[in-house]
Amino acid sequence: MSNTFGTLFRITTFGESHGTGIGVIIDGCPAGLAVEAAHIQTALDRRRPGQSELTTPRNEADRVQIQSGLFEGLTTGTPISLFIPNADQRSDDYSHIAQAYRPSHADYTYDAKYGRRDHRGGGRSSARETAARVAAGAVAAQLLAHFGVRVQAYVSAVGEIEVPVGYEELDLSLIDTNLVRCPDPATAARMEDRIRAARDAHDTVGGVITGVATGVPPGLGEPVFDKLPAVLGHALLSINAVKGFEFGSGFEGTKLAGSQHNDEFYTDDAGRIATRTNRSGGSQGGISNGQDVYFRVAFKPVATILQPQPTVNQAGEAVTLAGRGRHDPCVLPRAVPIVEAMTHLVLADLLLRARSNKL
Amino acid sequence: MSNTFGTLFRITTFGESHGTGIGVIIDGCPAGLAVEAAHIQTALDRRRPGQSELTTPRNEADRVQIQSGLFEGLTTGTPISLFIPNADQRSDDYSHIAQAYRPSHADYTYDAKYGRRDHRGGGRSSARETAARVAAGAVAAQLLAHFGVRVQAYVSAVGEIEVPVGYEELDLSLIDTNLVRCPDPATAARMEDRIRAARDAHDTVGGVITGVATGVPPGLGEPVFDKLPAVLGHALLSINAVKGFEFGSGFEGTKLAGSQHNDEFYTDDAGRIATRTNRSGGSQGGISNGQDVYFRVAFKPVATILQPQPTVNQAGEAVTLAGRGRHDPCVLPRAVPIVEAMTHLVLADLLLRARSNKL
Amino acid sequence: MSNTFGTLFRITTFGESHGTGIGVIIDGCPAGLAVEAAHIQTALDRRRPGQSELTTPRNEADRVQIQSGLFEGLTTGTPISLFIPNADQRSDDYSHIAQAYRPSHADYTYDAKYGRRDHRGGGRSSARETAARVAAGAVAAQLLAHFGVRVQAYVSAVGEIEVPVGYEELDLSLIDTNLVRCPDPATAARMEDRIRAARDAHDTVGGVITGVATGVPPGLGEPVFDKLPAVLGHALLSINAVKGFEFGSGFEGTKLAGSQHNDEFYTDDAGRIATRTNRSGGSQGGISNGQDVYFRVAFKPVATILQPQPTVNQAGEAVTLAGRGRHDPCVLPRAVPIVEAMTHLVLADLLLRARSNKL
Amino acid sequence: MSNTFGTLFRITTFGESHGTGIGVIIDGCPAGLAVEAAHIQTALDRRRPGQSELTTPRNEADRVQIQSGLFEGLTTGTPISLFIPNADQRSDDYSHIAQAYRPSHADYTYDAKYGRRDHRGGGRSSARETAARVAAGAVAAQLLAHFGVRVQAYVSAVGEIEVPVGYEELDLSLIDTNLVRCPDPATAARMEDRIRAARDAHDTVGGVITGVATGVPPGLGEPVFDKLPAVLGHALLSINAVKGFEFGSGFEGTKLAGSQHNDEFYTDDAGRIATRTNRSGGSQGGISNGQDVYFRVAFKPVATILQPQPTVNQAGEAVTLAGRGRHDPCVLPRAVPIVEAMTHLVLADLLLRARSNKL
Repeated sequence: MSNTFGTLFRITTFGESHGTGIGVIIDGCPAGLAVEAAHIQTALDRRRPGQSELTTPRNEADRVQIQSGLFEGLTTGTPISLFIPNADQRSDDYSHIAQAYRPSHADYTYDAKYGRRDHRGGGRSSARETAARVAAGAVAAQLLAHFGVRVQAYVSAVGEIEVPVGYEELDLSLIDTNLVRCPDPATAARMEDRIRAARDAHDTVGGVITGVATGVPPGLGEPVFDKLPAVLGHALLSINAVKGFEFGSGFEGTKLAGSQHNDEFYTDDAGRIATRTNRSGGSQGGISNGQDVYFRVAFKPVATILQPQPTVNQAGEAVTLAGRGRHDPCVLPRAVPIVEAMTHLVLADLLLRARSNKL
Repeated sequence: MSNTFGTLFRITTFGESHGTGIGVIIDGCPAGLAVEAAHIQTALDRRRPGQSELTTPRNEADRVQIQSGLFEGLTTGTPISLFIPNADQRSDDYSHIAQAYRPSHADYTYDAKYGRRDHRGGGRSSARETAARVAAGAVAAQLLAHFGVRVQAYVSAVGEIEVPVGYEELDLSLIDTNLVRCPDPATAARMEDRIRAARDAHDTVGGVITGVATGVPPGLGEPVFDKLPAVLGHALLSINAVKGFEFGSGFEGTKLAGSQHNDEFYTDDAGRIATRTNRSGGSQGGISNGQDVYFRVAFKPVATILQPQPTVNQAGEAVTLAGRGRHDPCVLPRAVPIVEAMTHLVLADLLLRARSNKL
Repeated sequence: MSNTFGTLFRITTFGESHGTGIGVIIDGCPAGLAVEAAHIQTALDRRRPGQSELTTPRNEADRVQIQSGLFEGLTTGTPISLFIPNADQRSDDYSHIAQAYRPSHADYTYDAKYGRRDHRGGGRSSARETAARVAAGAVAAQLLAHFGVRVQAYVSAVGEIEVPVGYEELDLSLIDTNLVRCPDPATAARMEDRIRAARDAHDTVGGVITGVATGVPPGLGEPVFDKLPAVLGHALLSINAVKGFEFGSGFEGTKLAGSQHNDEFYTDDAGRIATRTNRSGGSQGGISNGQDVYFRVAFKPVATILQPQPTVNQAGEAVTLAGRGRHDPCVLPRAVPIVEAMTHLVLADLLLRARSNKL
Repeated sequence: MSNTFGTLFRITTFGESHGTGIGVIIDGCPAGLAVEAAHIQTALDRRRPGQSELTTPRNEADRVQIQSGLFEGLTTGTPISLFIPNADQRSDDYSHIAQAYRPSHADYTYDAKYGRRDHRGGGRSSARETAARVAAGAVAAQLLAHFGVRVQAYVSAVGEIEVPVGYEELDLSLIDTNLVRCPDPATAARMEDRIRAARDAHDTVGGVITGVATGVPPGLGEPVFDKLPAVLGHALLSINAVKGFEFGSGFEGTKLAGSQHNDEFYTDDAGRIATRTNRSGGSQGGISNGQDVYFRVAFKPVATILQPQPTVNQAGEAVTLAGRGRHDPCVLPRAVPIVEAMTHLVLADLLLRARSNKL
């Protein structure tokens, strides 16, 4: 019972990997926003399977249908319902896991929690659910664009291969110029090789996505429990395969002295209060300070591998699970739009919530 | 507007650093639980300032008052109100920051958000607010103890000094045997020296806290947005000074291949389905699998340093801020009970939520 | 922003009168419940337009599609999505109200609130939205049936024509034996005549629906703000055209002395604590006491009349609105399943919430 | 678990009749509002026991303490905590009900729900809890006053004695000129006699309170579930002893034809769109239309009577309960500020929620 996310800009998702489709209802989008299906589709196309040789060959067109909430191209303030029919389902691919528990998947835990599960393609636990988030995030992005906020994410590490510099030294317009969605071309090439090597070894590889939000006005984030990084962390840690989240100086920043870590305030040429450094990651006391909000998200290697693995079945008996189905050797490239979407959703929500700060 | 946390076991905190006190209402604690003020006090004593030479000399007894919700020693199902009066306030210590924005504090962002702030001791943004969380967490801990769940946290890094082994190789009963709350005595001694060095340099130092929950039954955590690690991450990222959260294999796990990372299932001697390794950190698909839930939380160095720092005032004019007040050179030792408290609160809530999984 | 109702058994509806359809997501239904489309369809058929000569001639088949949340006929604990396509839309019927504000409709208030509206058939403000509630309520009904709870509603007044006795003196199995859904055949016949008279006069008529829930276990309802009658009142007052709600002795009970009104406790033959009278309406202190929960809901006469009416347009200019479109002379018969549905939803939610009362 | 009310202007109450006191946390009040203890105290004084010969002789000064959320007389945007210590407790007055279930009280249902209860004075089920609502409502009133919204309530019926005219024909400035809080002096005198007669007969009497909100801007209320009357009904039905709620034309309006009931729009002299009649009660489609919001609330006669009553004890054995303690023969006069408070809270919340309607 938590298929809803957000307080004022709120989404509720539904659907399983092998059901009729995946969908989302957006409740709370202000009236008067121009929303186009094409914009949503562009976001979905960056997430959809089968988009390149580096991703799963499952081929889903992922065509979004807008079912409600728009009139003459503008939002009306009523719920926006988006539906993405499933097309290329092959449920028989999953008959072998009807009884067995795939290692590091949600098969066992769903059974333990609910006493039953839809085993086809992982059912509700499938990352296919994130298509709904991407669709909703595209609407949030349009709301944010209206206020000058922009979010970009990219793959900053695949396995042990890392982009050697920070986001501020990269040209983020290059993100979509390669299959792996890394704006550093040289590193991107190495990452692609790394992913191919994993695929050829019938194995998988993890990595890190870096996200950056620019144009965030000061004042977003709610003390004390819904601090900007806390809500953002919640959102990103709810994505399948995510194992960690850090913002600003993150784990590395713990090694600095306070005198090294503090961000000095000054007044910039435009008369705005700014900071000379940004180890805070755009958030102080959990509230945005007008600087870039940036963060890193850790993705574990995909659990589905095309190798036989020992495990147990529902009866607890030892069995060997053959590797089958159509899966990604590395989810990072397709996870980039998901990270962006969740960030869009969080910022849109905090932006609306901030409207009740003052008289 | 987010001083409430939790869905069914829900807390709402209030109070400022230099007001009448700090408090919390717990709503949703089941009836029939034995709750003792002494147990809450023990938790508060581990967080309170002035407890050792390594912490701020601000001396707060932090005596908890139970105002409602108990009858004859047992919870009644009605709200439990806990109040901790402030005692050792010295508001004049803060007159120098009434106008100036302390670097990497919430002074500027509160002003930007609300148009005003209570500058005394940071007002609501002060970590003093966490006393309320610790008090509430102690009640959650008693609920969890009833179901066999136990949470322990310890300092695993101070600056660059790290405990060289994982939690499973440590004797966690040693956590409170030293001032820094690290169960590895040799490392603890080095950490204490590191904190003293920071203090003597009028500087501060950050670090990492590791947390472990044992006895967590399978089935806690709600797909898709309130996955166990997502809610836990939210809770821990809402603590002052936290910059990152990872669970299980975390950021390091991103470097492994799927075949290395997967946790093999087997049936243990007691007939329970278990995993031979636990890189998942006790959560698969966002739902607990019965293994230990473990995680790491990054704390930045305390922003208040006893050194002069350049900054700006409300008018945007450059000023120099003198270092004054009473602060911790390192918050890690006092943050251990806060990390435990937030973990208690999350698990208590998810435990109650899991009651509606099945018919 | 409030298209979601419920805490643990939670529904979110979407859709407009003249869009692609109407839908609902049910989040929080426990796993393992047998849900059949046929059962949902039966409920929808009682609400659908065109079902008899007393209702609007708009002809909607209202065929429900189950899009997610079931596997092999049982709920899985994941969101249940129900969709009802719109079929018989005639948007041109509404061109005359694109500019004019229909008296006592939501045209003006939607414009005032959102700055725009989908005027076709009232858009989101249309009672067509309640189809989604009825569909969701049918699932809640199946959950309640599992626990022995049953809800029935009937038309107890049309205009000035009232059923002369209370529910306990009626044979509720007769509710669906006449077009008006009144279990008192003689009164039902007079009500039908009254509705026909209104229709023939190009006018409309209001009335009252009485609801009864039997088998409600003691302990449902949450003090202090979510008392059973408060949540139930909220649910029923959210139905289009409802103007009042009373439970138990209601407004008439205010005229009694306390000594006349109190319900005496006794122990029944089965050893259960019961009350000899039930002026409390099954709720004491906002919590169910095991007696029947009964209540009355007031519906105003339908605002759409087939007569010319003076009003203003968006520019505030006086205009005359011709009566057109297809509407009900009396909504009461079709509102019976809506009242039942909202009651089902409230009780299902309170039933799940009550699971965390005790250790 | 529902001691919280509101979405953006949110209150959480705690405390029992015979504990340390009653309190409330207000979360979400915008920063910059001038709040005075004196204003809150004035509201509390209208609710407090012992204020006149018509009320319970229990004598509580009900002095409010502001514990947080204000700085230099203005709200800061952080939680406002208000505490009202209990003073005149006589727990031994209640020893006789420790075992017995008082008819039409919450004794039995609390035991059924929680397995235990604080029997002293009804514990949490006591109407003493409403003191917290009144205190919070006074803050909401100050927020509403800032936007020109005013709420007034009065006693419109005691038993069978009713004010013969509607609110618009009364001089509401007379409400507090008599003990019963009825602005019609002649009727007020009869009501007072009626209450004295009940008191002298060791009995109690119920009645009706009418409420009116003026200056409500168009656009408040959220379709579809949080319609203005639905949320208002929820709030008022959550008050102890309330049995019914109707707004605008209410139950009587069900007897009208649509052509009689509809409110004709026109443009007033100030160029605003208004209605010539107001049977809608200021809400159309659940959204305020700028006209007065008015409603009626039914209160049953107080259940505590100073007469012996047959009942059962916890073991289900028949016992006779003697009438003891200090209680009101009629709660209506003291309930007036409670009705106002809940209305203030609802409108303040809807006003803040309406801020996200448009871009």
